[in-house]
Amino acid sequence: MDERLSPLEEQEHSLDPDDWAAFRARAHSMLDAALDHAEGVRDGAVWTPMPEDVKAALAEPVPMDAQGTDKVCEDLLARVLPYATGNTHPRFLGWVHGAGTPGGIIADTMAAAMNSNLGGRDHGAIYVERQVISWVKKLFDFPHTSSGLVVSGTSIATLIALTAARYAKAGYDVRRQGVRPEKGRLVGYTSSEAHSCIARTFDMLGLGLDALRSVPVDDVYRMDIVALRQAIRDDLEAGHRPFCVVGSPATVNTGAVDDLDAISRICQEHDLWFHVDGAFGAVAALSETLKPRFKGLERADSIALDFHKWMHVTYDAGIVLIRREDIHREAFTLRREYLTAAPRGLAAGNPWFCEYGPELSRGFRALKVWFHLKEHGIRRIAEKVEDNCRQAAYLGELVKARPELELSTPVSLNICCFRFAAPDLTDTALNLINEEIVIDLQESGVAAPSTTRLNGRLAIRVNITNHRSTMADFDLLVDEVVKLGRALVERV
Amino acid sequence: MDERLSPLEEQEHSLDPDDWAAFRARAHSMLDAALDHAEGVRDGAVWTPMPEDVKAALAEPVPMDAQGTDKVCEDLLARVLPYATGNTHPRFLGWVHGAGTPGGIIADTMAAAMNSNLGGRDHGAIYVERQVISWVKKLFDFPHTSSGLVVSGTSIATLIALTAARYAKAGYDVRRQGVRPEKGRLVGYTSSEAHSCIARTFDMLGLGLDALRSVPVDDVYRMDIVALRQAIRDDLEAGHRPFCVVGSPATVNTGAVDDLDAISRICQEHDLWFHVDGAFGAVAALSETLKPRFKGLERADSIALDFHKWMHVTYDAGIVLIRREDIHREAFTLRREYLTAAPRGLAAGNPWFCEYGPELSRGFRALKVWFHLKEHGIRRIAEKVEDNCRQAAYLGELVKARPELELSTPVSLNICCFRFAAPDLTDTALNLINEEIVIDLQESGVAAPSTTRLNGRLAIRVNITNHRSTMADFDLLVDEVVKLGRALVERV
Repeated sequence: MDERLSPLEEQEHSLDPDDWAAFRARAHSMLDAALDHAEGVRDGAVWTPMPEDVKAALAEPVPMDAQGTDKVCEDLLARVLPYATGNTHPRFLGWVHGAGTPGGIIADTMAAAMNSNLGGRDHGAIYVERQVISWVKKLFDFPHTSSGLVVSGTSIATLIALTAARYAKAGYDVRRQGVRPEKGRLVGYTSSEAHSCIARTFDMLGLGLDALRSVPVDDVYRMDIVALRQAIRDDLEAGHRPFCVVGSPATVNTGAVDDLDAISRICQEHDLWFHVDGAFGAVAALSETLKPRFKGLERADSIALDFHKWMHVTYDAGIVLIRREDIHREAFTLRREYLTAAPRGLAAGNPWFCEYGPELSRGFRALKVWFHLKEHGIRRIAEKVEDNCRQAAYLGELVKARPELELSTPVSLNICCFRFAAPDLTDTALNLINEEIVIDLQESGVAAPSTTRLNGRLAIRVNITNHRSTMADFDLLVDEVVKLGRALVERV
Repeated sequence: MDERLSPLEEQEHSLDPDDWAAFRARAHSMLDAALDHAEGVRDGAVWTPMPEDVKAALAEPVPMDAQGTDKVCEDLLARVLPYATGNTHPRFLGWVHGAGTPGGIIADTMAAAMNSNLGGRDHGAIYVERQVISWVKKLFDFPHTSSGLVVSGTSIATLIALTAARYAKAGYDVRRQGVRPEKGRLVGYTSSEAHSCIARTFDMLGLGLDALRSVPVDDVYRMDIVALRQAIRDDLEAGHRPFCVVGSPATVNTGAVDDLDAISRICQEHDLWFHVDGAFGAVAALSETLKPRFKGLERADSIALDFHKWMHVTYDAGIVLIRREDIHREAFTLRREYLTAAPRGLAAGNPWFCEYGPELSRGFRALKVWFHLKEHGIRRIAEKVEDNCRQAAYLGELVKARPELELSTPVSLNICCFRFAAPDLTDTALNLINEEIVIDLQESGVAAPSTTRLNGRLAIRVNITNHRSTMADFDLLVDEVVKLGRALVERV
């Protein structure tokens, strides 16, 4: 290792292109392919499964030798680009995926060129992230003294929020000592319809899945507030230590809106941390029309939400807000010698973002959020949220108007769950038929709803977090469901 | 909410551009700006602090109304792009940042256009990530039955690995019951030089910072194996439950290489989980020349490493590998009704990646890794690792040749810690002078090393994870350090 290369020899050895002009031309042609994909998104199938021969071609041995930019680009165009998830299509209506916007291409191009690491230090990207956090605090009526962190999504945001909650409410030094159930088991509450990331967080934090009490829901799937009070009382009597309640501004199954106001009052009474799992639902509160339904949200101790869902920032990006900055930082800070901040220079910029969450290296996902919010503005994003709610209501009406279809539960917000229900068929048969309808819709590329189970019955679940969907898409969907359902009944 | 817009009215309301041609032209001009930035990276200062008036311009009110693509692009060019972290510059030599490559711009452009969510389901991005995982397993001699997950970096990778370790070794159902110290406190071991993400993980997992035993290091900062054995014995005698040891193929402070082979044997003896914190160091094992120094790595139960450091993939991207796929999945899986996998259609593709880590929504960071490994090939990436080690050794020789400089510890791998040390000055004075030298280097834009403390003395820490650095950069660095040091001594 001691023979010395000349600087020139080494420079030739860098990973930068030998021929910048050729690289530039290729990058532009790839950008055109990306933009063609974005512009033509309405034309193709929602979802195109990857053929077996493409899968086989992908499964190449470890690339020990350089294949070069051109070859890799060609492979990308042939083997990857045609097989996207489909959520940019106007009739992607499954799960809760955002639809993205082409502006994200520009923002991510620039983020890749800058290659910033937002763990800390004093550079431009840090100020962009601070600005994004400051805007979101304002939007959700959080005090300017609160704190936040841009993360990959609600799962990590929840992990951060409940780590802070555990720290704030444990009653002993949980950071040093770990979880100590003998001092009173830390228990929390959320509805039986809550997202699984809450349970996963209880598991990871060492509290245990059993420590998350599953509060029953009412007939429209909202947390039963009387049952919540009772559960807290029971735990207190049993000597446990209730420490948090997690409310949902919209459950993922049915779009049910928990009574956040009532939950926040209960939290205040019992000194519990009030966390809001706002993954997509919190975004609805950006609409002045819808905002009254989310009263209480502004009193949360922490909110987790996604930018990549109902705000349509490209994947992945979310945020956590925490009302008390001191608690947030104290729950995470750990700095070593090699991370010492300096009063000036690149190592300034205190406090560093790595003191507010688990990640030390942090990419510049704040840039696409900043870009997107400025490009489209909050009002326009909120209008699209309202459009989606209007579309869900419209779909509900279409379902009611068809004798072969039935609503599985009243439409709430942007989610409509329904099923094909021919008379004289058992639920078991209908479950199979409805599952088959959904798979057929996906495989034909016509639409991509998902499924769920409500009261043991399989429902076609249409979640509309899509700024490209139009009313006509739902006319088409309903026609197809009925057509497929009838055909399947005939086959049975 | 019941008035119906015509499909046309709604389509006009989507967040897509009204004028695609204009948008396309703007995207191309932004790509040129990104490529100019990448191509010109050697010319400018390493780091340009953001001026106060730019900070003030960034701090605009919440963008309620759309500003449009052009305005946002202009703001990005004026207020953000010039103020990058600096780690793409050949004389960025601080902390452990990768230098990125322009190929990442192409990959991220396409990932943004596809907007894939890799939580699960059956689509192209999933197969790309599986391929990346398969390659990395092969590169680290992990069995093909092992599992992995592409994540934002080593911090999250460590969280996943140690969650699996806790699950595997607790001796009770830690997922359901949470951490139960009365059944024997779970304790782990790592060296006093280990990265703070290990401690943070112990904290988050509810084990407590105190449960991570800090094993002393030898005179070149490697974990003291005798002390490790003693610590395990002490804990067993005290009734605790040792469950894991974390070894470092390269410590962040000094690049010290733990004796992974010895650690792995101790783990086998005591049935402990052997985790390797490979953040940047594991990448050195890709070099056939360096590989023998990392013997034992291939016997780890889990490895965490970053693609965005010594492999130069753009931020952020890392991976966790776990030898036992069943344990990995059992430690995380939690699926609800709305995530049920189907035998066919878009909801197929089992198992889903969301069963292997905390994130349910997952961006397509695997694409840039796939692109990068194919574009440059493992051998070329490993050559750059060897170059960096050669450069660190060369810098060490330069330091030894200068009477005013002293090595703080022998050079190990790619890290050289040294200081300016004029005679007759106290350590306190030298600490101030060396800190000032580093700040001056950063503020002048000449170079960006960082600092650390070794034996209580402040050292200039040069970490070389940079494929653009050349030998001449270190000649220049040493000249500047001596010049600045002399000037500061005169001022004292």
